[in-house]
Amino acid sequence: MSRIDGRQADQLRPVSIERGWSKHAEGSVLVSFGDTKVLCTASFTEGVPRWRRGSGEGWVTGEYAMLPRATNTRGDRESVRGKIGGRTHEISRLIGRSLRAVVDFKALGENTIVLDCDVLQADGGTRTAAITGAYVALADAIAWGRTRKLVKGKGQPLTGTVSAVSVGIIGGVPMLDLAYEEDVRAGTDMNVVCTGDGRFIEVQGTAEGVPFARHELDALLDLAVAGCAELDTAQRAALAAD
Amino acid sequence: MSRIDGRQADQLRPVSIERGWSKHAEGSVLVSFGDTKVLCTASFTEGVPRWRRGSGEGWVTGEYAMLPRATNTRGDRESVRGKIGGRTHEISRLIGRSLRAVVDFKALGENTIVLDCDVLQADGGTRTAAITGAYVALADAIAWGRTRKLVKGKGQPLTGTVSAVSVGIIGGVPMLDLAYEEDVRAGTDMNVVCTGDGRFIEVQGTAEGVPFARHELDALLDLAVAGCAELDTAQRAALAAD
Amino acid sequence: MSRIDGRQADQLRPVSIERGWSKHAEGSVLVSFGDTKVLCTASFTEGVPRWRRGSGEGWVTGEYAMLPRATNTRGDRESVRGKIGGRTHEISRLIGRSLRAVVDFKALGENTIVLDCDVLQADGGTRTAAITGAYVALADAIAWGRTRKLVKGKGQPLTGTVSAVSVGIIGGVPMLDLAYEEDVRAGTDMNVVCTGDGRFIEVQGTAEGVPFARHELDALLDLAVAGCAELDTAQRAALAAD
Amino acid sequence: MSRIDGRQADQLRPVSIERGWSKHAEGSVLVSFGDTKVLCTASFTEGVPRWRRGSGEGWVTGEYAMLPRATNTRGDRESVRGKIGGRTHEISRLIGRSLRAVVDFKALGENTIVLDCDVLQADGGTRTAAITGAYVALADAIAWGRTRKLVKGKGQPLTGTVSAVSVGIIGGVPMLDLAYEEDVRAGTDMNVVCTGDGRFIEVQGTAEGVPFARHELDALLDLAVAGCAELDTAQRAALAAD
Amino acid sequence: MSRIDGRQADQLRPVSIERGWSKHAEGSVLVSFGDTKVLCTASFTEGVPRWRRGSGEGWVTGEYAMLPRATNTRGDRESVRGKIGGRTHEISRLIGRSLRAVVDFKALGENTIVLDCDVLQADGGTRTAAITGAYVALADAIAWGRTRKLVKGKGQPLTGTVSAVSVGIIGGVPMLDLAYEEDVRAGTDMNVVCTGDGRFIEVQGTAEGVPFARHELDALLDLAVAGCAELDTAQRAALAAD
Amino acid sequence: MSRIDGRQADQLRPVSIERGWSKHAEGSVLVSFGDTKVLCTASFTEGVPRWRRGSGEGWVTGEYAMLPRATNTRGDRESVRGKIGGRTHEISRLIGRSLRAVVDFKALGENTIVLDCDVLQADGGTRTAAITGAYVALADAIAWGRTRKLVKGKGQPLTGTVSAVSVGIIGGVPMLDLAYEEDVRAGTDMNVVCTGDGRFIEVQGTAEGVPFARHELDALLDLAVAGCAELDTAQRAALAAD
Repeated sequence: MSRIDGRQADQLRPVSIERGWSKHAEGSVLVSFGDTKVLCTASFTEGVPRWRRGSGEGWVTGEYAMLPRATNTRGDRESVRGKIGGRTHEISRLIGRSLRAVVDFKALGENTIVLDCDVLQADGGTRTAAITGAYVALADAIAWGRTRKLVKGKGQPLTGTVSAVSVGIIGGVPMLDLAYEEDVRAGTDMNVVCTGDGRFIEVQGTAEGVPFARHELDALLDLAVAGCAELDTAQRAALAAD
Repeated sequence: MSRIDGRQADQLRPVSIERGWSKHAEGSVLVSFGDTKVLCTASFTEGVPRWRRGSGEGWVTGEYAMLPRATNTRGDRESVRGKIGGRTHEISRLIGRSLRAVVDFKALGENTIVLDCDVLQADGGTRTAAITGAYVALADAIAWGRTRKLVKGKGQPLTGTVSAVSVGIIGGVPMLDLAYEEDVRAGTDMNVVCTGDGRFIEVQGTAEGVPFARHELDALLDLAVAGCAELDTAQRAALAAD
Repeated sequence: MSRIDGRQADQLRPVSIERGWSKHAEGSVLVSFGDTKVLCTASFTEGVPRWRRGSGEGWVTGEYAMLPRATNTRGDRESVRGKIGGRTHEISRLIGRSLRAVVDFKALGENTIVLDCDVLQADGGTRTAAITGAYVALADAIAWGRTRKLVKGKGQPLTGTVSAVSVGIIGGVPMLDLAYEEDVRAGTDMNVVCTGDGRFIEVQGTAEGVPFARHELDALLDLAVAGCAELDTAQRAALAAD
Repeated sequence: MSRIDGRQADQLRPVSIERGWSKHAEGSVLVSFGDTKVLCTASFTEGVPRWRRGSGEGWVTGEYAMLPRATNTRGDRESVRGKIGGRTHEISRLIGRSLRAVVDFKALGENTIVLDCDVLQADGGTRTAAITGAYVALADAIAWGRTRKLVKGKGQPLTGTVSAVSVGIIGGVPMLDLAYEEDVRAGTDMNVVCTGDGRFIEVQGTAEGVPFARHELDALLDLAVAGCAELDTAQRAALAAD
Repeated sequence: MSRIDGRQADQLRPVSIERGWSKHAEGSVLVSFGDTKVLCTASFTEGVPRWRRGSGEGWVTGEYAMLPRATNTRGDRESVRGKIGGRTHEISRLIGRSLRAVVDFKALGENTIVLDCDVLQADGGTRTAAITGAYVALADAIAWGRTRKLVKGKGQPLTGTVSAVSVGIIGGVPMLDLAYEEDVRAGTDMNVVCTGDGRFIEVQGTAEGVPFARHELDALLDLAVAGCAELDTAQRAALAAD
Repeated sequence: MSRIDGRQADQLRPVSIERGWSKHAEGSVLVSFGDTKVLCTASFTEGVPRWRRGSGEGWVTGEYAMLPRATNTRGDRESVRGKIGGRTHEISRLIGRSLRAVVDFKALGENTIVLDCDVLQADGGTRTAAITGAYVALADAIAWGRTRKLVKGKGQPLTGTVSAVSVGIIGGVPMLDLAYEEDVRAGTDMNVVCTGDGRFIEVQGTAEGVPFARHELDALLDLAVAGCAELDTAQRAALAAD
């Protein structure tokens, strides 16, 4: 069974990770998973939110948004509507949680890093591309802080690497890294966030239509773990390319 | 290793499902998982939202909220703050999605059922109790509509049953149905929504602290499936008790 | 002239005051006036709002809300609409004002008590049930604070007792404690908040349709004072039942 | 006991009712009770809100607001804060309710009149001045509609007249029409809305501090009824002065 | 070519500047440009916003709003809609910017003056009337602060005078101080804020329909400068009339 | 006097206009004025807003926003704050107004084009870059509609071309196209929107500090007209490059 873009079921779309995209941010990455393009910036600031002051620990948080015409049909701006939708909230929280899972806050010290993931063009998998790109921006922002002696703790603030990918079952076949049209047709849709050593940070699987069986879940997890390993390699290559 | 309330690792808290709690709602359930108490009401109305009119299909949606003093420390009301927080959004969406997975919208016809899940007292597992109770309220509301000939489609609008439970790893041990204090201490936390025949509607696992390995994920899924089967039995008993 | 539920014109509905309903709150009461059920929780916290700091005086405030399906037809959540309606504001302010009238803030010291009154089921008289129940929850919360030596002032923080009841004129007959269907048909509707010794804290009478004459007002006040005296007895009985 | 401005206890402040203040509105009045000045405009539009269409009946509603520097200390604009406070809501609702009590909606036909009461300068009694002025603006707007044959029903849409005044107990003495400084010192504060024939539309009495006894309530009602009768005379004089 | 009200193309409408309109504000002016009436109050408070503390410099800001029935058709209140529209924002910012241009903040010291400009009746040119009136209110508020020794800096806080006027091209003819009906018909519309010595603080010209040529722009600027000089004279006369 | 980036006073920064940047939008341009980068998308939809239906005329509107880290210091998202700031409102309105000035709405027919201008990186002149880029995106969207026969009117919907540039006086010297650091130091700042034939659509000049004289205004207008002519050439080149 061939996919709409001719890929194999277990094949990622072309991935590109372009560092240093922004003049201002301490870390910035334009990440593409096929036609999905997300601009991830990491803003490093000294100090932490009020509730964390004096703890000696830092903080990392994420915000996700889409440009109004990132999608096929223009969506209203959430700033104009005056409130953030449920989907945006969920993904922002997921991004923050995923990256915090590989940060040692003692080693980061009382510094805050905000990861802004703005989808410039959407074609499925925007949240997984966002997490994958945000990790690289985070690594750059931490390096920036270390160079300037703002990260004063001993030891490395990053305790691992993080990447994420979507998987789904279409016409009974488990597939990796769904494009938008595939996502729409998928009976089950799962987002998986992994560390570089193949453990899980987050597993979110949803039946769209028909509930899924344990063996299907297992097949999807296998695909996702393999996909994240490839993304991990791409992240390392990008970070090595100074 | 014994639990704070003396349960076994694979044991649910006492579950109670009290139907007909409300005088006004077409279906209503006060569900308890231990000290967690959620009032679930199902409101049946003829007609569907604008975007679905003329489709011949119905709609089911969920809303979740907590009373301000459901928790140990009083929280501000979201109505007073003027916006709904990310967590509330996420859970409301989860409830709606979970119940829609077992509804045949053609058979329901152009009717809408809103499931309001208001947490009166919280002690961990509020979203899983909400889903489990909301299923029973939904079944009652559909029966109400059938009796009054408002559900005109052929066939049964409910295509299955739904229940949900939390699982987590505490001190290396996978445990079922976490109370609040256990939830706080869990290194990994997972919410699982199952159908009565043991398939999955939703799997949401999150590493709180240390990423989790595949064998841990597998153990948690085993526990959750067994827990959901027990909840399914409790739901059937409650619905049989007319 | 008999009433829809067979009561006499000067008869209250069955009143129940159930203390200790909540595991978490310092005071909590589930109060029923017939089918109207309100959960009143009193949250005691040390400290006062900024504008009152250093005064040596405490603060008491109230918040009122209805669950969406407390009523016969489901209402939208105010949290979802993003703002609180005029009726909710009015009743919240009334509750706070009524209870502050019997508190000696010097004796309370710099502590704050928030009274949350959430209507679980509505059948008329929700605000008067809320005030009546909140008084008992307030008394329990103050006792809680005294036991823990958090209320350090000399003297008793409660200077009196408070209860409230609705009265109205239906078909020319003044009646006590209106149920929802009666309320809808009432030509004049009045809410009265009294102290236990028969004085007034608040009198709010409104002509719905035909303006009312002085002698009608007088008859309504007589009924209300007698009703509040009965409620005062019920409150004392509940508080005595330790 | 003399008052701060030398008035007798049962004496109104100088009242002025200036009609035709606005070039645009169908009815407009600048009303003064002493230094309290409220601009009341009545906007007549054909048609009614959606929920009333086809009923053959009209609608009347009120909105109250204060300019930011109407008071001694500047208050933030509610438009800037993004929400309307509880006090504004309460008074807007009171104004609408009070004027609807003297309107025959069948006779008005499917027309809407909005009464905007904007306080230009505040010195106590702003809501009672607003109601008193709004009645005159309403009468002018109805006359405007009748002249243009937009009010097509038979009979007179106004079934009576309305005025309002505040009363309170200061140092044990019941007083009429409190100025701001008196209001602050009042132990009990009551707003009374009367028809021209001395019946009540609204009675709102609040103990600020010490609960009030029945005989005090009676004395306040006597004062208020007399005050409203004087205001009724002033309204009639203003409306007669074409 | 004569104008709708018989004026010459280069003639202002009758201008009136009535000081001391409000009992409470430190400076207050009711300014009229023909039928346009704006109440401008200046509120003087000691202290500055947080971001300016310790600078030794003061702050001046403006807020503009319209009463709902200031215009021919009633507009919804921005407080009720829950947000401020773009036009209100723009004009508020313009007022603040225009007046700050003639204030020496060192000489003002750490004091804040808020200029509230509320349009009571609108007939074109509300923003220019607001600026012209606000200058006089500002001057009075500064004088008030100097008298009370709250303005402690050496030197005069006002470094110049400010007035503003609208100009536009109607049927090819440049005209001064447009009334509402003229404004609607203008092909080009410009608001000009000048100092008393004929220099520019703000020039905002907009083509409504047909773009305008340089020679037209020049003619409009000539008219505006002459109009502002006349307004400057009126302001001085008002301030001299103690 | 040399500029921070070595330019002459009358020299633009390098301008780039990249068409077809987005896969989804009917017109899309990534425009750069030096380090300022704005993504302009034009979304073409059939139909017009309610207030314009049946007129036979189309509509064009603009929305402007900045990514949170487009600037040197991260700014909060307006969607998170829940409201749009004054500056964003002003610029959105300016963009819409500027482009509507060259559209023949009869020729466009009942179609709507929304121009979203999202600043990806800011270094001064974001609104002028946005207008300049939006014109090209608009031209592409109109061509798209004509090709698909959705633009049915006779004649060309575009009646001219539009570009915009900032000018300012720094140290007494008028300069063209200010970068951010120059903008901060400018004593007078002006944004000028011109048609391709050198007429004005919008002129907005503001004194930041010292009011400006007529001869300075004239010099700035000369610079701006020349700058817009250069931008017009760049736009034509981009549109010719199919």
